[in-house]
Amino acid sequence: MSESSLSSAPLKDEVDIVIATMKNLEFLEMWRPFFQPYHLIIIQDGDPSKTIHVPHGFDYKLYNRNDINRILGPKASCISFNYSSSRSFAFMVSKKKYIFTIHHDFFVAKDPSGKEINALQQHIKNLLSPSTPFFYNTLYDPYREGADFVRGYPFSLREGVPTAVSHGLWLDIPDYDAPTQLVKPLERNTRYVDAVMTIPKGTLFPMCGMNLAFNRELIGPAMYFGLVGDDQPIGHYEDIWTGWCVKVICDHLGLGVKTGLPYISNSKASNPFVNLKEYKGIYWQEELIPFFQSASLPKDCLSVQKCYIELSKQVKEKLGKVDDYFNKLADNMVTWIEAWDELNPSG
Amino acid sequence: MSESSLSSAPLKDEVDIVIATMKNLEFLEMWRPFFQPYHLIIIQDGDPSKTIHVPHGFDYKLYNRNDINRILGPKASCISFNYSSSRSFAFMVSKKKYIFTIHHDFFVAKDPSGKEINALQQHIKNLLSPSTPFFYNTLYDPYREGADFVRGYPFSLREGVPTAVSHGLWLDIPDYDAPTQLVKPLERNTRYVDAVMTIPKGTLFPMCGMNLAFNRELIGPAMYFGLVGDDQPIGHYEDIWTGWCVKVICDHLGLGVKTGLPYISNSKASNPFVNLKEYKGIYWQEELIPFFQSASLPKDCLSVQKCYIELSKQVKEKLGKVDDYFNKLADNMVTWIEAWDELNPSG
Repeated sequence: MSESSLSSAPLKDEVDIVIATMKNLEFLEMWRPFFQPYHLIIIQDGDPSKTIHVPHGFDYKLYNRNDINRILGPKASCISFNYSSSRSFAFMVSKKKYIFTIHHDFFVAKDPSGKEINALQQHIKNLLSPSTPFFYNTLYDPYREGADFVRGYPFSLREGVPTAVSHGLWLDIPDYDAPTQLVKPLERNTRYVDAVMTIPKGTLFPMCGMNLAFNRELIGPAMYFGLVGDDQPIGHYEDIWTGWCVKVICDHLGLGVKTGLPYISNSKASNPFVNLKEYKGIYWQEELIPFFQSASLPKDCLSVQKCYIELSKQVKEKLGKVDDYFNKLADNMVTWIEAWDELNPSG
Repeated sequence: MSESSLSSAPLKDEVDIVIATMKNLEFLEMWRPFFQPYHLIIIQDGDPSKTIHVPHGFDYKLYNRNDINRILGPKASCISFNYSSSRSFAFMVSKKKYIFTIHHDFFVAKDPSGKEINALQQHIKNLLSPSTPFFYNTLYDPYREGADFVRGYPFSLREGVPTAVSHGLWLDIPDYDAPTQLVKPLERNTRYVDAVMTIPKGTLFPMCGMNLAFNRELIGPAMYFGLVGDDQPIGHYEDIWTGWCVKVICDHLGLGVKTGLPYISNSKASNPFVNLKEYKGIYWQEELIPFFQSASLPKDCLSVQKCYIELSKQVKEKLGKVDDYFNKLADNMVTWIEAWDELNPSG
């Protein structure tokens, strides 16, 4: 795919942009040149009696907690509010092939030439070109213009596999955990790394939900952001957890996960003292990572749903003893899949 | 390590620069500001009766085929000439901790600001900072200035592991195989990717020997560039083969392999018609890669030498049936280790 073959609004009818927020959406003004041609799903992540303002001219559908309760009934319990978790509901009700989800209040970043980066366009490029999880290419994404597979790359692997996830990055304020934020309050990411790469099979990564796109048909049912928030023992960990589930399932199904471009700009530091609510995640992750590194799915798990249900069983069996929270999470992983299948009967 | 803490000639007494060539070494003039403080080992890779010219002022030791025969005796048969394979002899006779080997005729590259890149200095930075093979960090090398581990990176893995290999890249003419060269004769790599990253455990990569540094104490005995050249059925594959051996051993021993910066510039295209001699490599690699992907070393292989001898046995057992060449190669892998241990009795 050449750099110029994409129109300014590629796949206009096949993409939903998902945002969850408690605030007015003035940040969309910045994104207007890039987002206005697309449909948005907005999750009002707070008091449903309030009205949040969406700038004129955007094509959107807004759901609040009442809508979610009405649509999902008792299964609505699997959708947490606060943090980014409520976006999962949007992933479920979308009818589009591709999802791009962005954290509100993130700005358009600029490339080293000063040009504003069309993040969505780069995500679409990433998702439309294959991934190479089985062997590392030292010149990074071999499908980009001006690149290819280097000497020594096996020819049998050059077709690649379908890309399920495109994980974008952030300039300015880096996505650090609370302890690192506290230790390095002034650190800013100013390094623009002009690369997209596939995360190899068998390797886990910390997936950040702030600038994330995926192929809903390939991996949608695994994009459950779990149980977090003020009524849960853990916060600020929903996307990280999801990333581990997603990577294990992509590896099992032969799907690719890319990371790198596009950048967006994070200019508002979150509060590290509030973020300390992630402390249980920091503690638990030392047990979660060996779990996910050794997780193995049976060969007959050929759909994302089946993989996810199987993973929920393993979560209950192996992580339930870490904390009862994981039993509850495992139950809600099942509820999530039931709700997904109700809303997406054909798939 | 801060960017400025390195003097202009870091580790001056602990590095050997290794070059193998049949030609006069005028290309060293370009590298003089960076290489002159260091010791060079030059392998005269052709007719030993000829004299090759080394520009004045360099501190070097030159070995030709006669020297190698004299020093190694009958074991000299394991050192191929032509291609880059003869460099292995230099790795063996070096008494330094770090090796930087560079293909003759490669130029100093410039970074996007136009500044000449001190490739050796970047390799030393890479080798002196740890690697992170067990979990992917989305902001690349977490030990670089201005970077760190992102949210969701397990704290127990943040110490990293010792770095054994630093694999640098090339601007301008990319390191493509002969078929790709023939198909894309005009493609040039102009993308400066400002990143260093660890190749994850369990993932193989195509190691190019043109811009390569390593910690000789950690991985030296695995840096055997094998049997290639005019008297062998295969050429242009020595570094690729070595990279697979090296990666399997690094993974087994818990050592890191980094790739990315520094760049050097490859401005002289090699002849793709000559390079077609690699065709057997292209053919064989489809069997070699599954072999290396599934290679497993016993727990009691705790030294590089033991790992390498074990690997030679597996090569003979499993690849001997692909072609008798691999039986011969396996025998020479053993000879190589015997010669290494003779010349390096303490290690």
